[in-house]
Amino acid sequence: MTVGIGLVGYGWIARAHAHALRTVDRLAPLPQRVRLVSLAGRQAGGVEAAAREFGFERCTTVWQELVGDDDIDVVAIATPTESHAAIAIAAAERGKHVLCEKPLAVNAAEARSMLDAAEDAGIVHATGFNYRFVPAVALIRQLIDSGRLGDLRHYRALYLQDFASADGAMPRDAGAVFDYSHLVDMLRHLAGEPRSITARTSRFVSESEDAYAAHLELLNGGVASLEASRVALGWKGRHTIEINGSRGSVWWDMEDLNRLHVFLADDDRDGLGGFRDVLVTQPNHPFLASWWTPGHTLGWDASLVHQWHAFLQAVIERRPVKASQASFADGRAASFVCDAIHTSSEEGRTIDLTYADATTP
Amino acid sequence: MTVGIGLVGYGWIARAHAHALRTVDRLAPLPQRVRLVSLAGRQAGGVEAAAREFGFERCTTVWQELVGDDDIDVVAIATPTESHAAIAIAAAERGKHVLCEKPLAVNAAEARSMLDAAEDAGIVHATGFNYRFVPAVALIRQLIDSGRLGDLRHYRALYLQDFASADGAMPRDAGAVFDYSHLVDMLRHLAGEPRSITARTSRFVSESEDAYAAHLELLNGGVASLEASRVALGWKGRHTIEINGSRGSVWWDMEDLNRLHVFLADDDRDGLGGFRDVLVTQPNHPFLASWWTPGHTLGWDASLVHQWHAFLQAVIERRPVKASQASFADGRAASFVCDAIHTSSEEGRTIDLTYADATTP
Amino acid sequence: MTVGIGLVGYGWIARAHAHALRTVDRLAPLPQRVRLVSLAGRQAGGVEAAAREFGFERCTTVWQELVGDDDIDVVAIATPTESHAAIAIAAAERGKHVLCEKPLAVNAAEARSMLDAAEDAGIVHATGFNYRFVPAVALIRQLIDSGRLGDLRHYRALYLQDFASADGAMPRDAGAVFDYSHLVDMLRHLAGEPRSITARTSRFVSESEDAYAAHLELLNGGVASLEASRVALGWKGRHTIEINGSRGSVWWDMEDLNRLHVFLADDDRDGLGGFRDVLVTQPNHPFLASWWTPGHTLGWDASLVHQWHAFLQAVIERRPVKASQASFADGRAASFVCDAIHTSSEEGRTIDLTYADATTP
Amino acid sequence: MTVGIGLVGYGWIARAHAHALRTVDRLAPLPQRVRLVSLAGRQAGGVEAAAREFGFERCTTVWQELVGDDDIDVVAIATPTESHAAIAIAAAERGKHVLCEKPLAVNAAEARSMLDAAEDAGIVHATGFNYRFVPAVALIRQLIDSGRLGDLRHYRALYLQDFASADGAMPRDAGAVFDYSHLVDMLRHLAGEPRSITARTSRFVSESEDAYAAHLELLNGGVASLEASRVALGWKGRHTIEINGSRGSVWWDMEDLNRLHVFLADDDRDGLGGFRDVLVTQPNHPFLASWWTPGHTLGWDASLVHQWHAFLQAVIERRPVKASQASFADGRAASFVCDAIHTSSEEGRTIDLTYADATTP
Repeated sequence: MTVGIGLVGYGWIARAHAHALRTVDRLAPLPQRVRLVSLAGRQAGGVEAAAREFGFERCTTVWQELVGDDDIDVVAIATPTESHAAIAIAAAERGKHVLCEKPLAVNAAEARSMLDAAEDAGIVHATGFNYRFVPAVALIRQLIDSGRLGDLRHYRALYLQDFASADGAMPRDAGAVFDYSHLVDMLRHLAGEPRSITARTSRFVSESEDAYAAHLELLNGGVASLEASRVALGWKGRHTIEINGSRGSVWWDMEDLNRLHVFLADDDRDGLGGFRDVLVTQPNHPFLASWWTPGHTLGWDASLVHQWHAFLQAVIERRPVKASQASFADGRAASFVCDAIHTSSEEGRTIDLTYADATTP
Repeated sequence: MTVGIGLVGYGWIARAHAHALRTVDRLAPLPQRVRLVSLAGRQAGGVEAAAREFGFERCTTVWQELVGDDDIDVVAIATPTESHAAIAIAAAERGKHVLCEKPLAVNAAEARSMLDAAEDAGIVHATGFNYRFVPAVALIRQLIDSGRLGDLRHYRALYLQDFASADGAMPRDAGAVFDYSHLVDMLRHLAGEPRSITARTSRFVSESEDAYAAHLELLNGGVASLEASRVALGWKGRHTIEINGSRGSVWWDMEDLNRLHVFLADDDRDGLGGFRDVLVTQPNHPFLASWWTPGHTLGWDASLVHQWHAFLQAVIERRPVKASQASFADGRAASFVCDAIHTSSEEGRTIDLTYADATTP
Repeated sequence: MTVGIGLVGYGWIARAHAHALRTVDRLAPLPQRVRLVSLAGRQAGGVEAAAREFGFERCTTVWQELVGDDDIDVVAIATPTESHAAIAIAAAERGKHVLCEKPLAVNAAEARSMLDAAEDAGIVHATGFNYRFVPAVALIRQLIDSGRLGDLRHYRALYLQDFASADGAMPRDAGAVFDYSHLVDMLRHLAGEPRSITARTSRFVSESEDAYAAHLELLNGGVASLEASRVALGWKGRHTIEINGSRGSVWWDMEDLNRLHVFLADDDRDGLGGFRDVLVTQPNHPFLASWWTPGHTLGWDASLVHQWHAFLQAVIERRPVKASQASFADGRAASFVCDAIHTSSEEGRTIDLTYADATTP
Repeated sequence: MTVGIGLVGYGWIARAHAHALRTVDRLAPLPQRVRLVSLAGRQAGGVEAAAREFGFERCTTVWQELVGDDDIDVVAIATPTESHAAIAIAAAERGKHVLCEKPLAVNAAEARSMLDAAEDAGIVHATGFNYRFVPAVALIRQLIDSGRLGDLRHYRALYLQDFASADGAMPRDAGAVFDYSHLVDMLRHLAGEPRSITARTSRFVSESEDAYAAHLELLNGGVASLEASRVALGWKGRHTIEINGSRGSVWWDMEDLNRLHVFLADDDRDGLGGFRDVLVTQPNHPFLASWWTPGHTLGWDASLVHQWHAFLQAVIERRPVKASQASFADGRAASFVCDAIHTSSEEGRTIDLTYADATTP
């Protein structure tokens, strides 16, 4: 028994998916083997070379062919955002399960149509919010669920990079709001749904916005700050998450991916309180049992392995992805908040998000 | 020749001023000696003991006496904010020079009246925004002035503490907005005047607000984020400042006071770009020539020594404080922004700050 | 055209090799495809399950069978150290190329016999000193070769872990000296050959030594300190390398694998000297062109991918491994120094290492 | 009642002592006031200016005068090491209490004569090993004494600077061994007496040795590594102390003076083990009750205030300094180990230190 995979796109993130797919059933056993069936891409030469490199059996320049391929059970979408909806909806209509890169769509309305198509077809669907599968981030979620951080007060996240500042940086058609939608998904995953948002976008060197900052009030009473920039010189991948609760706090930085800093208020009692520098490589840490011995760190790419493992388990067991994985509903919710960031910034007002889970996008 | 000092208040920050005043003319020579003349405080027993400890010649429970004391040239105010205006105005009317702790006043209108009184009297006046005098912060200012960071894009500052979260924490009458007005002064000092502000205050455990967060648009085209909290568990004094410019970036954290992290875009050229961990204890660093040899760090209290040195130089030279030191005008400007934080939070809207330097309020 | 691989051993490090071998010709193209032919291990059940998981075509409980398998070009050895020599020599005699895990052998004499066999057979041979293939470490080597660090003064390395301290830690038959021979190889690779060594081993909880520390004088005039421990509580994988030269310095810590700290003396000129925090994920950094975009970090396992890529290139090109990869000669040299650590500690004297490259072991 | 102080020397460390003496009875009350009576130095012009700056009543170019001054109770010695013995012995013979800078003497024999003179005279004596009085270091000692770290296994300390590498660095007559005797005192204070030592000195740019490294076996069964250098480019004051015990570990770095990193093995139980980043500014931390509120850090100079406070308490109470402060006996013991470092390096052998506390030096 195998699960046949079709991958659309062969850029760097597609390569990362192929890398993860070669590993997912090896390091973390699955009841069925993964079979890399077909790769689709627009340039004949490019897609052929990539298929050979990535290890796919065949390739095509027509994604519709891939979507209709009977050997394919799962379609992975790693193309520019503009094309996500058409591919995902077509795949769903053919009964293919779909894992789509983030952002799910160019706006919430489009994301809504993708979700509807997926639900109508009864397929397994997921959005590629892979940071949920970084071990240190999963450990944050465990700490929250266990109550060890208490009630959430502050959530604070940054995603700072500087690639758009470099000499001769390529023009980016996508804006920073949707490009850094990871921030929104992490917030929802770790801190819960927002009630309202006040946001501001900024443009420095690109045609579309290069940065955004947002304050959110959360349904649970906490408050959140998000900030992203692709022109923050000096930072290559400073994706940080900080949570302050009534009993403890945590912080994490993607640049030191395997480290989680944990403060437990009880530690303060005898003067020895301080953030604990936890290297998340112990066998009792999330996902770590599948990997190496303590002290041997994982890369960013491991999050894709974990993401695929969870998704393929759902596919094999013919059930929706678990709440710990982002579905199309989560992709839509993130798009909804991203739309609100634009609206808030343009109209200079706070946007009510409480109807975010209602039926209208 | 001496400069006679009167200090009103004997709490912890008053002790820090007395400590600085014992050092200011010793480590960093002044043309006149500092004389600690009188200490004023409300409790007779307390102020007597404190005067002895701090090294003042006499003491009084009536601050009006101190303000009228002919041996006193300079009045330092380190009392609760509510009493600043009355003391400062009375001192100014007697021709005493005044260094007043931050926040200057309970609101901008009151700060305006203090500024007016000081200007009418022609005294030298300063607000105790001492972080301007931390060597690493002064080095940031040098870097900005030299153009090495280029045009400012992002300014990002936090002031996170957790003292209000501790078991049996004392009730705080003051709110976090004015208490953490340092954030506003640092922004103005390092990044320039704000054009507008959108803010939100939060209350978790106190009667008044425990936290605030604000976005600001700056006159120079950059954007800023400020956030303060006294219930952010795990942080004792995480006062951070981050600046991203078009040619470089810096960041600093009060908990590692003597360190400045400096990124220069040119360093990226040959793959060796990264924030430089600069230990600000070299003789060519700001204020350091007066202190120890490289590697021997300064404490937070050194900033008060530098602040007093600058202020007393102005007093001795009979001129206003330099632009590098916060005057009452800066204290008023910070109060103006703090008022706007409250207004923005209450009314849920962006506040225009461009009339901040006009005569009203 | 394919390169057939036989792997002996199926413990955690063998799994890491299999993981690397699935990726090596995908992410970093090779002129021939890698074929995972056979896995050998002592327990029939275990090796069968592992072969299925790792993706090998077949398996055997008799390593001699694997060594004689005509489909196999390369034998990878990931068994306990005691069995390395027998397997490697048999493989060499059959004309198989051999990549053997570290330590190469239980002592220098045995390592010498392996080297002799490999040279007699004319095979390509390598020792699994994979840290040479960590991008940040390779960047250190580039900096040294370019002269940017100047003449070496100090080399300082630690490898601290605490696994042997844990409750119910498994007994380790191997001692810390050979187990942490990585320290010796890194020293030779980055700082050159040692002239003499003074060492001390320590035992705290195991039957054999848990720790060692050594001073070395280097042929180039520098001095080195090495220290390893498996009972240093709190450290999971603190493998650090520090070099101070006459023009610059670097330091690296395995727990933050993708970061290199670089100090260039010239930076001190204008008061902005400090270790630069370089995130080694830029496309112009060693090995990075094959991976992700900046800011997306690699794991420890990437070093094995790079190691295999270099080795397989040598195999395909029918030439010895380059000097940047550890051959059996390097494995022997490390064993020679490890033997000297034991001798120095037992006899309480400094050991002359200058005959290390002579013909006698 | 006052305690009259005479200070010999007016270099940078003398200035630091004067700074501490102005504060010691103010911030941390003493039953008697400190009186800065006289300053001695060789250059008439220099010592006069310094006396004025430091706040001494008078000055002299003849230290013998100061030692004989009836207003002086305590002689502080901050001159080049060569002159320590003569001044200290003369002061002791006049019944003056003596606090002498480190290293106490140029060798153990001279230190022995100073100790004998002090004991014969019955004076209070101390050696300026001020790091014992850094709050974070004092907290280490508390943790050791409380048993929370368990039995000591590893002690590891560095003192790395680069001042001797700078362009135009001043020639240093003193060698690194005695100059960095702090390392020896910290070891004895925190880890107990050494049993034997194996050491090596190195010379790179100076006339005397620039660096040394030593291994020590301790009477308690642990092992220690010490390394110092003044030519380790990039480090301005990296004085680090690391201890690994059987129940916990700590590490500290002078460049981030107020921070102590504490690992407690019990924290590992539920996967949340990691070094705790303790900011040592809480009121229940050593010495902190006298200073500021949490989060406001102390400088290196605070250690001198604490050192003087402890010394003057002993003087006022007419008793020897407590074991937590270094006496001349500790200064002699450090000199004894420093002598052994030279001997071990010159003779290439391990030196037995067990007779260190016997009567011969």
